[in-house]
Amino acid sequence: MWDLDTPALVVDLDALEANLATMEATVRANGIAARPHAKTHKCPAIARMQLDAGAVGICVAKVGEAQALFDHGIEELLMTTSNVTPTKIRRAMGLRKQCPRFIQATDTEENARALSEAAAAFGVTADVVVDVDPGGHRTGITPGAPALGLAQLVDRLPGLRLRGILCYDGGSQHVKGFEVRQKQTLERLAAAADTCDRMRASGLDTGIFSGGGTGSYNIDHQTPGFTDVQVGSYVFMDAQYLEIGGKTDPEVYTDFEPSLTILATVLNAQYEGRATTDAGAKACTINRPWPIVKGETGMSYTSGSDEFGSIRYEDPSRTYKVGDRLELIVSHCDPVVNLYDRMFAVRNGRIEAVWPIAARGMST
Amino acid sequence: MWDLDTPALVVDLDALEANLATMEATVRANGIAARPHAKTHKCPAIARMQLDAGAVGICVAKVGEAQALFDHGIEELLMTTSNVTPTKIRRAMGLRKQCPRFIQATDTEENARALSEAAAAFGVTADVVVDVDPGGHRTGITPGAPALGLAQLVDRLPGLRLRGILCYDGGSQHVKGFEVRQKQTLERLAAAADTCDRMRASGLDTGIFSGGGTGSYNIDHQTPGFTDVQVGSYVFMDAQYLEIGGKTDPEVYTDFEPSLTILATVLNAQYEGRATTDAGAKACTINRPWPIVKGETGMSYTSGSDEFGSIRYEDPSRTYKVGDRLELIVSHCDPVVNLYDRMFAVRNGRIEAVWPIAARGMST
Repeated sequence: MWDLDTPALVVDLDALEANLATMEATVRANGIAARPHAKTHKCPAIARMQLDAGAVGICVAKVGEAQALFDHGIEELLMTTSNVTPTKIRRAMGLRKQCPRFIQATDTEENARALSEAAAAFGVTADVVVDVDPGGHRTGITPGAPALGLAQLVDRLPGLRLRGILCYDGGSQHVKGFEVRQKQTLERLAAAADTCDRMRASGLDTGIFSGGGTGSYNIDHQTPGFTDVQVGSYVFMDAQYLEIGGKTDPEVYTDFEPSLTILATVLNAQYEGRATTDAGAKACTINRPWPIVKGETGMSYTSGSDEFGSIRYEDPSRTYKVGDRLELIVSHCDPVVNLYDRMFAVRNGRIEAVWPIAARGMST
Repeated sequence: MWDLDTPALVVDLDALEANLATMEATVRANGIAARPHAKTHKCPAIARMQLDAGAVGICVAKVGEAQALFDHGIEELLMTTSNVTPTKIRRAMGLRKQCPRFIQATDTEENARALSEAAAAFGVTADVVVDVDPGGHRTGITPGAPALGLAQLVDRLPGLRLRGILCYDGGSQHVKGFEVRQKQTLERLAAAADTCDRMRASGLDTGIFSGGGTGSYNIDHQTPGFTDVQVGSYVFMDAQYLEIGGKTDPEVYTDFEPSLTILATVLNAQYEGRATTDAGAKACTINRPWPIVKGETGMSYTSGSDEFGSIRYEDPSRTYKVGDRLELIVSHCDPVVNLYDRMFAVRNGRIEAVWPIAARGMST
C-alpha cells in the first residue's frame, strides 16, 4: 500500500468488516434492519458485503447510481429521491423492468400520477414508498393528512404498489452528543410514526418505514413501526462523524472505526513549520473539519487549495521530508469517494483488491 | 440544452470564444503570451482551442493530466508541479520519451539529480524549468542564490536542458480590487525577476519566465523578463473570480464572461420560501461564494448538502415548481469540472458538441 502512486483512496478491510459487523449486530438486537445507503461508497463490492452481512436492501440517491449497482449485480434497491422529470421517470421505469426489486420514492400526488402512467407505458408494477418530510422541508411531503392522502392515492393508482414510507432526517445525524441527538431524532420522527400508524389503520402497507443514518442507527428503533436504517457513513467514518460523540464517549464517536484514508506524498519540505503534499481539494474536498493525519499529533492538515495539501506543524510527533508518504482520515466520506474511480482494499498494509467505484459521478 | 438530464455541465461557446479572444488580444498587446493551465478544464477540446488561438503551450498540474492531454493530441505541455517520487519521475520521463515538447518543473537539487538520472535511464534529454517560490512557501525554491544555484545545477546535469523559471503566485489571484492586486502581484514577482536577471547574466536560458493567472493576466507583463501567463479560470469564470473586481468595475470582474454553468432541476417546491434541486455538493462542490442562479435575482442558492441544492427566496424574480430547470454560474470552476466526465458545448441554447473531460480525476 505504501508503494501506491498518490493521491490514492484506501479502505482498510479489517476496519470495514468490523463496521459491518457492529451495524448488523446492533440493528438485529434492536429488532430492525439495515438498508445501507450506497450514495456513500458508490461501490458494488461494498454493497455486496452489506447484503451478505444481512442488510435488507441498498439505498441509492440517483437513478444513475441504481443502474450502475444493478449492472454490477445488486438487485435489492430503494431509490430515496423522487424522480420528477419525464426523462428520470423513464429511466427509473426502464430499470424497474430489468430489476423487479427496485423501489421508488414519491412525494407529490402529481408525481404519483406520472409514475402510474409511466408504469402502464412500461408494462410494470412499480413499487413505491412515500417520502415524508421530517421537518427540514428539503424533500418529502408533510406528515399527517397530506402524506396519508398521497399513500392512499399510490395504493389506488394502477401500476403502483405501495410499500411504506421513508423519513430521512439528515439534519439530526451530526447533532453533537448522544442524548441531544436522541431527543431530536425521536421528536422529528414522531409525526412520520403517527402517519405510519394512520396508514396501517386504513389498511395500507407499511412494511417499510425507513430512515435514519449513521448518527441515529442506535436510536431510530425506538420509534414505533420503524423498520430499517439508511446508514451510509458507518462503513468508512470520517472527521465529521468522529466529532459528534457517542453513547460511551461524548467527545469522539467510537462506534465505528475510520476505515477510509487518502494516501498522500510530501512535495515540498523546504520551508519552516510546514510541508506541502499532493492531496488538495481535488483529492480531499474542502469539507470541514479538515482531514486528520492518521497516527500523528501536533500537526494540522488543510486541503483548501485545488492541487496541494498543507501540513502545519505545531508540536509535531514527526516532521516530513520530500517524498514521504502520509495517510489522511477523510473529512467527509461521501464527496471524497465521488472523486475517485477506484479504491484500494488493504489488510495489514497489503492490497487485497482494487474495487471500481462504479457509481462515481453518477449524479443524474 | 434545456432537455438535458440534470445535473449537467454546460459551456456556452460564444462566451468561451470571447474569453479566448480577450486573453489572446491582451497578452499579445502586452508583449507576452498565454500558456493556459489545463487543471481548470481538463478538456482536450478546449486545450486545442487555446493553442489555435495563439497560446504557446498548455500547463498541467499532474502527470496524469499531461498524459491524458497528450493521448488526445496535445503536445506542447508544461507540468508546473515537481515530480518527487520514483514512480512519478518514471511516468514523467516515459511521457517525455513520447512527447518531445514536455517540460518539467523542479525545486530542489536532490530532485534535479533524480531527474538527471532518470533521463539517462530513459535515454532522453528532459526540458526543465526551476519552480521559484513567490513567498507563499507552498512549492518552489527560494528566489535569489538558492534558485540560481539550482538553475546552474540543472544546466550542468547530463540529460537535462534548462528552459527557464516558473513563479506562480496563487495567493495574489483573488485579491479584491485591481490596484491592490497589481501592487501585491508585482511585489511578489520582483524576487523571481531578479533571479531571472541573474540567471541570464550567468549565461543561463531564461526563455521561459511563466506565472500568473486569471487575476493578474493584465499585470504580470510589467515584470521585466516575464514571458507567459498560466491562466486557467478565464475560459469559464466563476463566482469566486466575479468578486475580485477589475480595472473598469471595482466590484465585478467583467474582463471575461461566465461561460460555465450547471443545469439543475427542481425536485421539491411544496414548502414556503424555498425549493430543493438535484444539484448539491456532488454536482457543485461546497466552494464559496455559492453558485449564482443565472438570470434571476432575489434568491440564493446553496449546495451544502451532498445530493440536494437549496434555493431560498428573498425577493425573487420568479419562483419554481417541481420539474423546472435552472442554470447555475459555478462557484469555483476547477473543482466543479473535476466532478464531471463530459461537458455540453452549447450555442444559443443548442448543443453543438459533447466534450470528454479526459483528465477528470487525474489527480496522480
